Amino acid sequence: MASRFALMIDPAASDDLRTDFADSFTVVDPTAPALNVSELSTQRGDGIFESIGVVEGHVQETRAHLARLAHSAQLCDLPAPNLAQWRQAIALATAHTGSGEGVIKLILSRGVEHGPAPTAWLTSAPAPDFSAPRTRGIRVVTLDRGIDSGAPSRAPWLLLGAKTLSYAVNMAAIREAKRRGADDAIFVSSDDVVLEAPTASVILRFGDRFVTPAPASGILHGTTQLSLFEHLAERGFATDYETVSASSLRQADGAWLVSSVRLAAPITAIDGDEMSHDAEFSASLNQYLLSPRD
Amino acid sequence: MASRFALMIDPAASDDLRTDFADSFTVVDPTAPALNVSELSTQRGDGIFESIGVVEGHVQETRAHLARLAHSAQLCDLPAPNLAQWRQAIALATAHTGSGEGVIKLILSRGVEHGPAPTAWLTSAPAPDFSAPRTRGIRVVTLDRGIDSGAPSRAPWLLLGAKTLSYAVNMAAIREAKRRGADDAIFVSSDDVVLEAPTASVILRFGDRFVTPAPASGILHGTTQLSLFEHLAERGFATDYETVSASSLRQADGAWLVSSVRLAAPITAIDGDEMSHDAEFSASLNQYLLSPRD
Repeated sequence: MASRFALMIDPAASDDLRTDFADSFTVVDPTAPALNVSELSTQRGDGIFESIGVVEGHVQETRAHLARLAHSAQLCDLPAPNLAQWRQAIALATAHTGSGEGVIKLILSRGVEHGPAPTAWLTSAPAPDFSAPRTRGIRVVTLDRGIDSGAPSRAPWLLLGAKTLSYAVNMAAIREAKRRGADDAIFVSSDDVVLEAPTASVILRFGDRFVTPAPASGILHGTTQLSLFEHLAERGFATDYETVSASSLRQADGAWLVSSVRLAAPITAIDGDEMSHDAEFSASLNQYLLSPRD
Repeated sequence: MASRFALMIDPAASDDLRTDFADSFTVVDPTAPALNVSELSTQRGDGIFESIGVVEGHVQETRAHLARLAHSAQLCDLPAPNLAQWRQAIALATAHTGSGEGVIKLILSRGVEHGPAPTAWLTSAPAPDFSAPRTRGIRVVTLDRGIDSGAPSRAPWLLLGAKTLSYAVNMAAIREAKRRGADDAIFVSSDDVVLEAPTASVILRFGDRFVTPAPASGILHGTTQLSLFEHLAERGFATDYETVSASSLRQADGAWLVSSVRLAAPITAIDGDEMSHDAEFSASLNQYLLSPRD
């Protein structure tokens, strides 16, 4: 059984060539105070994160998550993370993840107000039981993200490709979905382009072709989507990054929200319209996603 | 001299009629760990805040700040804050603000992940020295906020009128302004409507008339802007809430960014174009803003 675990990390410079960063780690009680009230993560949501799935002690797609952490840091003008240090921290946490499914979160905050350096920490915990959304599926609603699809390239300060800690809108969108009797949401641009879910990527199936919105449209490049596209290609399916219009959602032969811990959740309804759902195919996707992946 | 001070608050229900909430407060060291790593404020920027100016021991516009805290809580589906409790917490902090200028921050987070209740705390600290921006003024750039001016009414889940902890974009906009050689930014909608600054309201002067963007356009209703409009009306000026086009910014006879702690910062340049700046008039605004206000 997995236990909860937390590690404060004294962030090393990206060019620090040490091979052992053990001195930079401090194990802390995840239920006890560890952060001070001047933390810019708490005051401003000013920082970045990654959530990584762990299955039977195997950390899934570490490299892709670390690459995205580094990309988010760059977009947010944070010092480049030392990936060897993060790898070692992840390895330390893995010893505590036990059997079953877990989640490791990496957090890199801008630090305390007027402070000298970022604050970094890692947590690991058992994952919630996601068997119901994986097998029975989820109902989603489309929600306007306010921005048009040209905004990300016009306005990089909107940080649309960065996984920042500023998720209040993402959480509000999920609450709105639940108010509407659904489980989750799909964000759509003001000019009717499908973007992403608040905490997942969107994958659509058209015949033997799988499509996901292009990351250039200001969405996060989903690590699970990437992994699943590799798998689908190996199974002989075509995979494409495309501009997907909101109206084409309902024309899909299948649709999933995919993310690192819930994995592939088949969509059974969009805005109240039922969607066809191939339970056996979804099971095969989750079987792949639960296998050790690097 | 003001000292730093922090108080953890066990949030009382809004209908809790106690007159003394002292039992619900715990003084903590602002530089020591007080928050745990599962805090949704740190993980998701999921919560709300207020920053209140303190001048010579007087907390400015407490009522307006508490009203906005309650409004933000409602927009974010957080339990309604008990305002009597917050007033008492503010009074306790005021004893530590000393002479000169200070800032009290109120923070109401959704709490720890899967936890039973919100987490709340207050900090007070000396304010930075803002005499230079108040007297010499600030250079600003306009930055596209990505959203169109219709988004706030179409999509309340964007939380555009709430003062959430998810300020990563606001902070990124200020960094972008500095990269462009300016001090601060003014957000403009994708359809060319002036919104607000990342941490301030925009006030423009046209002759004897003062104008600020209407709060319905999805901006925060600035407590300092409200207070200053009352003051300007008392001095016989006209004050209006209007839709302000980005192109009309440069036609103003004067422009300010106003906020609770920096107060009125006259704008001396917009996107590199110099603006006229009446130093004496700005001084009169800051003299008013530094006087005790309720």
